[in-house]
Amino acid sequence: MTKLFAGIEGGGTKFVVAVGRPDGKILAETRIPTTTPEETLSRCVDFLQAQADALGSLAAIGVACFGPLDLQPASVNYGHILSTPKNGWSNADILGSLRKAFDVPISIDTDVNGAALGEWRWGAAQGLENFIYLTIGTGIGGGGMLNGNLMHGLLHPEMGHIPLPKDDDAISVCPFHDDCFEGLASGPAIEMRWGVKAEELPVGHPAWEVEASYIAQALRSFICTLSPQRIILGGGVMAQAHLFPLIREKTLVELNGYIQSPEILKRIDEYIVPVALDGKAGILGAFALAEQALKK
Amino acid sequence: MTKLFAGIEGGGTKFVVAVGRPDGKILAETRIPTTTPEETLSRCVDFLQAQADALGSLAAIGVACFGPLDLQPASVNYGHILSTPKNGWSNADILGSLRKAFDVPISIDTDVNGAALGEWRWGAAQGLENFIYLTIGTGIGGGGMLNGNLMHGLLHPEMGHIPLPKDDDAISVCPFHDDCFEGLASGPAIEMRWGVKAEELPVGHPAWEVEASYIAQALRSFICTLSPQRIILGGGVMAQAHLFPLIREKTLVELNGYIQSPEILKRIDEYIVPVALDGKAGILGAFALAEQALKK
Repeated sequence: MTKLFAGIEGGGTKFVVAVGRPDGKILAETRIPTTTPEETLSRCVDFLQAQADALGSLAAIGVACFGPLDLQPASVNYGHILSTPKNGWSNADILGSLRKAFDVPISIDTDVNGAALGEWRWGAAQGLENFIYLTIGTGIGGGGMLNGNLMHGLLHPEMGHIPLPKDDDAISVCPFHDDCFEGLASGPAIEMRWGVKAEELPVGHPAWEVEASYIAQALRSFICTLSPQRIILGGGVMAQAHLFPLIREKTLVELNGYIQSPEILKRIDEYIVPVALDGKAGILGAFALAEQALKK
Repeated sequence: MTKLFAGIEGGGTKFVVAVGRPDGKILAETRIPTTTPEETLSRCVDFLQAQADALGSLAAIGVACFGPLDLQPASVNYGHILSTPKNGWSNADILGSLRKAFDVPISIDTDVNGAALGEWRWGAAQGLENFIYLTIGTGIGGGGMLNGNLMHGLLHPEMGHIPLPKDDDAISVCPFHDDCFEGLASGPAIEMRWGVKAEELPVGHPAWEVEASYIAQALRSFICTLSPQRIILGGGVMAQAHLFPLIREKTLVELNGYIQSPEILKRIDEYIVPVALDGKAGILGAFALAEQALKK
């Protein structure tokens, strides 16, 4: 019987569930709308059981889920969603629901750490031990690896909420902070400030200079704090490929030669890069989490 | 013969060299002024050899040194100081000079990572896997552990150079950045702004409100980026114990309830703490690095 990995990419509007081979080849995939935790998770379980019956046995499950999540293995709430504005999902026991249904190793992490792991396994971060992955879209989130392990801590990074110096006309859309990266530079922030959806702003519009400046400030902050070997940028806003040269140039200006690394000073094009897996990073990240679960 | 550890704390004005027991008990210590690399390092070697002859054999050496340092084991410049304004020290081969003299395991890291390791082994970070250690004095530097390993990456963190939102009367003393943590909040920044040395400013002076605000912004940035389990603050400026309650209060305001962790929301007094080893963190950190070298 074929050894199968299962991946679940849990988002606020939909759950993507897939079964595939250990090499990342997806054999079956479905999308389940995010309703109540009970309904959503039981539909995930049903799909995986049906696929396992048809295709072979599940060897491991990886879950890359929206948060905030309790990721401390010693905690009684390990694998639960913490308090969230998403109706009905506060304290939802994601890991426990799956453990009840499947007696295989299961690994859970944040959606961004999952995507980061996907990029490490099959995408733009292969061979690295220290990198960050940022998604800049409806929200801004970050994850990555340090010393070869996914970033965890007290909880998990919330990179969208670092403070940034803001310009005089800045508007923050974050209900918590008037000066955070997400508040100033997420897709909704662009729309609020310029009165037009980000994807409708033309190349060359002054909005992009402002956007690239905020992103460059944030990257300088992450570089000085973490010293990553590479920075991978994804998400809806970063689909604007013309942003990359602007961001690279402004990041060099921000750092102003302080970090003496040829990777930054001479090879910035390979240092700040787009996602390689694009729309697949999430579900492939969940597969990579399954692979990790099996190794533990 | 007693097993001895050697520790070297390399600074811009002096090197502290000590020999001691594996439990951190210092048996002999000296201070050597930082002159040329050749002279300074050969005096370190001479002291250690004399102590080893008198007290027993050296089992391992730990070096916590000013930077920037090349800390990539695979690099040809591993253990060298990189380009530095400190006259004569650019490209100084710290590790190589010691390896020529001693055939024992040697571990080298930044001064701040060394101090962080000292706090982990014997001080305020015992039992933690994720924490940061910041020194706020003549300069501002940071290190710490992530997933149980000292923070490394492309180079090493330069936490003093993250950008911060600045107030209208801000003055930066950093020659590279007009908006960085070190530029705005180091000892020399306080003196430049208020015209008086930090240690001469009385408790209750408005300078301390400004200082605590900058530090709180920086801590929010590090918390959102790294999610540490604890933050340890040392250095000359932090000798002002009255700063701690101000910093804790302002950090809570900065985060504004976004990070839902009881460690932060309910136990901030145990979350943002002073160094426990005080003036000894550097040399004890070097001992802890020696211990690490022996385990590798």
